[in-house]
Amino acid sequence: MLVFENDYSEGAHPKVLQRLIETNMEQMSGYGCDPYCEAAKEKIQKACECPHAEVQFLVGGTQTNQTVIASLLRSYEGVIAADTGHVNQHEAGAVEYTGHKVLALPQEAGKLSSETVRAYLRRFFADENQEHMVFPGMVYISHPTEYGTLYTKSELAALSAVCEEYKLPLYLDGARLGYGLMSPGTDVTLADIAKYCDVFYIGGTKVGALCGEAVVFSKGRMPKHFLTTVKQHGALLAKGRLLGVQFDALFTDCLYMEISKQAIETAELLRKVLKEKGYRMYLETPTNQIFVVLENETLKKLQKDVRLSFWESLDETHTVVRFATSWATTKESVEKLAKLL
Amino acid sequence: MLVFENDYSEGAHPKVLQRLIETNMEQMSGYGCDPYCEAAKEKIQKACECPHAEVQFLVGGTQTNQTVIASLLRSYEGVIAADTGHVNQHEAGAVEYTGHKVLALPQEAGKLSSETVRAYLRRFFADENQEHMVFPGMVYISHPTEYGTLYTKSELAALSAVCEEYKLPLYLDGARLGYGLMSPGTDVTLADIAKYCDVFYIGGTKVGALCGEAVVFSKGRMPKHFLTTVKQHGALLAKGRLLGVQFDALFTDCLYMEISKQAIETAELLRKVLKEKGYRMYLETPTNQIFVVLENETLKKLQKDVRLSFWESLDETHTVVRFATSWATTKESVEKLAKLL
Amino acid sequence: MLVFENDYSEGAHPKVLQRLIETNMEQMSGYGCDPYCEAAKEKIQKACECPHAEVQFLVGGTQTNQTVIASLLRSYEGVIAADTGHVNQHEAGAVEYTGHKVLALPQEAGKLSSETVRAYLRRFFADENQEHMVFPGMVYISHPTEYGTLYTKSELAALSAVCEEYKLPLYLDGARLGYGLMSPGTDVTLADIAKYCDVFYIGGTKVGALCGEAVVFSKGRMPKHFLTTVKQHGALLAKGRLLGVQFDALFTDCLYMEISKQAIETAELLRKVLKEKGYRMYLETPTNQIFVVLENETLKKLQKDVRLSFWESLDETHTVVRFATSWATTKESVEKLAKLL
Amino acid sequence: MLVFENDYSEGAHPKVLQRLIETNMEQMSGYGCDPYCEAAKEKIQKACECPHAEVQFLVGGTQTNQTVIASLLRSYEGVIAADTGHVNQHEAGAVEYTGHKVLALPQEAGKLSSETVRAYLRRFFADENQEHMVFPGMVYISHPTEYGTLYTKSELAALSAVCEEYKLPLYLDGARLGYGLMSPGTDVTLADIAKYCDVFYIGGTKVGALCGEAVVFSKGRMPKHFLTTVKQHGALLAKGRLLGVQFDALFTDCLYMEISKQAIETAELLRKVLKEKGYRMYLETPTNQIFVVLENETLKKLQKDVRLSFWESLDETHTVVRFATSWATTKESVEKLAKLL
Repeated sequence: MLVFENDYSEGAHPKVLQRLIETNMEQMSGYGCDPYCEAAKEKIQKACECPHAEVQFLVGGTQTNQTVIASLLRSYEGVIAADTGHVNQHEAGAVEYTGHKVLALPQEAGKLSSETVRAYLRRFFADENQEHMVFPGMVYISHPTEYGTLYTKSELAALSAVCEEYKLPLYLDGARLGYGLMSPGTDVTLADIAKYCDVFYIGGTKVGALCGEAVVFSKGRMPKHFLTTVKQHGALLAKGRLLGVQFDALFTDCLYMEISKQAIETAELLRKVLKEKGYRMYLETPTNQIFVVLENETLKKLQKDVRLSFWESLDETHTVVRFATSWATTKESVEKLAKLL
Repeated sequence: MLVFENDYSEGAHPKVLQRLIETNMEQMSGYGCDPYCEAAKEKIQKACECPHAEVQFLVGGTQTNQTVIASLLRSYEGVIAADTGHVNQHEAGAVEYTGHKVLALPQEAGKLSSETVRAYLRRFFADENQEHMVFPGMVYISHPTEYGTLYTKSELAALSAVCEEYKLPLYLDGARLGYGLMSPGTDVTLADIAKYCDVFYIGGTKVGALCGEAVVFSKGRMPKHFLTTVKQHGALLAKGRLLGVQFDALFTDCLYMEISKQAIETAELLRKVLKEKGYRMYLETPTNQIFVVLENETLKKLQKDVRLSFWESLDETHTVVRFATSWATTKESVEKLAKLL
Repeated sequence: MLVFENDYSEGAHPKVLQRLIETNMEQMSGYGCDPYCEAAKEKIQKACECPHAEVQFLVGGTQTNQTVIASLLRSYEGVIAADTGHVNQHEAGAVEYTGHKVLALPQEAGKLSSETVRAYLRRFFADENQEHMVFPGMVYISHPTEYGTLYTKSELAALSAVCEEYKLPLYLDGARLGYGLMSPGTDVTLADIAKYCDVFYIGGTKVGALCGEAVVFSKGRMPKHFLTTVKQHGALLAKGRLLGVQFDALFTDCLYMEISKQAIETAELLRKVLKEKGYRMYLETPTNQIFVVLENETLKKLQKDVRLSFWESLDETHTVVRFATSWATTKESVEKLAKLL
Repeated sequence: MLVFENDYSEGAHPKVLQRLIETNMEQMSGYGCDPYCEAAKEKIQKACECPHAEVQFLVGGTQTNQTVIASLLRSYEGVIAADTGHVNQHEAGAVEYTGHKVLALPQEAGKLSSETVRAYLRRFFADENQEHMVFPGMVYISHPTEYGTLYTKSELAALSAVCEEYKLPLYLDGARLGYGLMSPGTDVTLADIAKYCDVFYIGGTKVGALCGEAVVFSKGRMPKHFLTTVKQHGALLAKGRLLGVQFDALFTDCLYMEISKQAIETAELLRKVLKEKGYRMYLETPTNQIFVVLENETLKKLQKDVRLSFWESLDETHTVVRFATSWATTKESVEKLAKLL
């Protein structure tokens, strides 16, 4: 079976696993107070070109979004997000569970434009009934988005500007951040993200780790007693080393970037193959996710040998599917897939 | 100054006030365990033609929506509503504050169609990722809607049918229920509402009371220990009599219907005047709210003598405004307004 | 039947009711933006000798406690209270419902001492595991307490000092504040309360109003967008006038104090009668609540003619009961009760 | 440095790590739908002698307590626990964060007796004000307790009986369950726990895993859509395999029991050494935690070479400390410690 179902089908990248093995019997303090968490934080600060960034490791993406968003909002505030945003669609209402509305706005290919956000904010603050409404308290974007698309540097700058104008923190969900940073066409670096966002997370789970996300407050606005908030959300690991060791490995010798690059290369290869064979792209994406329109018959046949993701029914005879590559995807598997296609 | 700003500009209807005066020094138990609450419940059961209906009095509309919705949903469920629904727009996120998402669907003139609901439910239960999403747990409609429009009996029946099919309670927000029931064109009675909905509330605040809403569970599905839930929401009055006496008065000799009727008659009169004078309706409404498009200049002049509600900017030179009548609006005041127009 | 069950058995004080009648047909804006709310605020500021106090009217006590506490705490904080405190015992978990722990401490006769609070805070901040615990975020006291007892001025000052030392707001629940202020032995004035507390509420429901509590932030620390928070809690009345008119009446010509005084005088009379007749006090109280130990036989007989509150079983043959007077209690009814006793 | 600080100082038990290494590149579906989760569930069902038990893996202890408790309680209910219970003391208010009160009761050596629970429930249901209070909705115990003590089988049976009588689920926090089951004096088996509790968790983090807790609903009462609730709490791992593989290893060839046994043996040895040397036990415990009273001077000296846990100040010259062993503690390290003592 060829697996292009998602980017979390394997365990850890071998180098990450190797470090877990090497450090396994070292005795360390719990809850993130260990030397590997420390080392990982420093390496992340360097990679972000942001020496004063505050870093906290959490376990998973939904958990991270829930904890960060709830910690930044006041009770009467909600979070602005694209209506296709992960927090609005596929997190089982984790944000609402903490008492906050997701203020869903229209998007294009998963991206929220600064114009849309500004228009919303203008309208909100011009509304005489605003005191009866949910106040916008922050802006959430994902990069890459849920559709595998990317913001440009100028788009990020524009979003950052509108956020600053209205004094709203800009938060970037980087569940697949590596795949975004290594996309050939992008002009956005990790340092740019640290510059334009108030807080973001560097996704580990989908980029080489067994689990783990690194939350970065790049402008010194980590909420007071954030560790306690993390604990209150059930997000604080006793063996915090599990996250520290993995992120230390991922940010040693640019491993995070390198393994992301490999996923992009196999994705590029697969994209080329698909186009050559006349497959219809549902959406042009520059990262590790490829959305393709298949005839239902073709899909059925393909599924005998390939595991991919159902995305949505397009019409009675066509289906949108997603192929995803990861750091673990090999050229060989893409070539095998090419033959099947 | 002529006041057409809303339907809660005055205190209580004189007959309601009279009963408060007459009963003021009677000594009664608290928290709704008084004879007037009992009497009011019985009268409401009769008016609903639903002798086994369970009735609980609460103080205000947002509070009622929050308490009823939170008490009916499980933690992983949200409430389906029109995107223009009061719970989605103008309750400061009170539903989300209790941990639940408002699943906002498109509407027409404030109304949610059974087709829209059914399509949403079909899509949801066909989605393989549903376990990562917010489950629909109930359906919220308002009648009259926030735009003063009304469901027909067959529309209500159709909504009820889809709710039954998916085993979702149907909840009707009747903040202005009287004005809906007395609309000349409606074919929906209070008994119909009790029949088609699992729970609804009969609005007192906007229909003759100082405050108070009567929640009716017409199919015996009042959640266990609902009184405690009401208390937990801060919605239980020590002097429950305040609500009991008022609703007892409102449901004595059809007062609720009669005073609603008067508001409808003055609204009809005002509507006629507006049309004769060539004013442009923004929306056709059969109840006590009238939405009119005014030139900004006209509006400015008018506001010197009339208090009305700003609704929204239509374009650079036009504004949508709302005129509302209530049980307290007199023909004389409409005639005075006519002269001004 | 003689009623000494509680202090909310009647409707409004006649003078309060009179003002509701007189203003009933005046047309006013909603949500507290009316001249009576304004006037009442000013009168309360004066009565508190605190011209810059911020005042907000809410409907009931549990609601007020829930809204104020939730608005002042950060998510990782809890509220310190006596374990007998109303918020800890008889509000159906309304505080916890908003996500916060009640940090219950031992008390004496319902009172929390500054020593107890200081010892708790010292221990907390000395605990190396504090980041895994709920941070103390404010202190809640009630005055009179649930046992009808009162803080002295020096006790209040001491509590205020420890709160200031640890930068915690001190919040006073004044559901029965009038009865405390008019207690003959007290040295605490309303101005003292405004001076020593950061926020408190002046109870209306139990002191002459149909409903309503006036929250006073005497040190300018009303949370941002408090009105929206009030709305989000379902605590904002459309007809805010109902609260404004009542509090305006209560704070005109010292009505609030005068009617409280009357309750104290009848309580004093009743206390004297009880002692003369050899009844055993469960607790010495200087306000309108009297706790008496009765033999079960005596209680049974008494209940044929008198409604009083069961408090708790003392042993197999004795019960603690509460007699409460209110502004509405007459000397005649106490004399009738005396005969029965 | 000798480390007796806690039972989570190392990584995974070597056999657990070995299975992670061996399975690392296998491609599996996410969110717990992988063959290792399946296999682990079956092995746990067998170990519990409960073939129909429902099992769900979560990541950490606080998270598990929060998710299980919130999923079982209705909004008006709280959870009964010992006042020393982990959920009441050291989880940063995670239970209250979900809206529920911890109903803390007195304990002895960390244990809640059935008598205490029954007395509380009797008093609660005899209280006429119960509708204004938080209803008891379940009972939480930990085994071993936070003090390393254990329930006997008859104590568990008695707690189970009172829970059944009042129809409350009994939930057992087994963060250190292995160390309890392998205690020489215990008469409680895993099957007993499955029999007497409605739900419990088998702790992985402190017994050989990197992270992970296995929640077992042994009586078929897993709440509907529990997976969605887990997701909503941010507790669902994309790479669910991380938990499945580890628990599969732990429940292969009784590894979980064996490695727990080793911790108990080193604890017994250490206990013997301490007693021989005349150290004063603060509390007699039969598991892997040993509480000792040290003179402050002795403690100071010891801390140069040994890492142990500060528990509490006993008086001005004495401190209570905790020594903990784990599956990773060797006899050699105990012998080294013996020399230092």
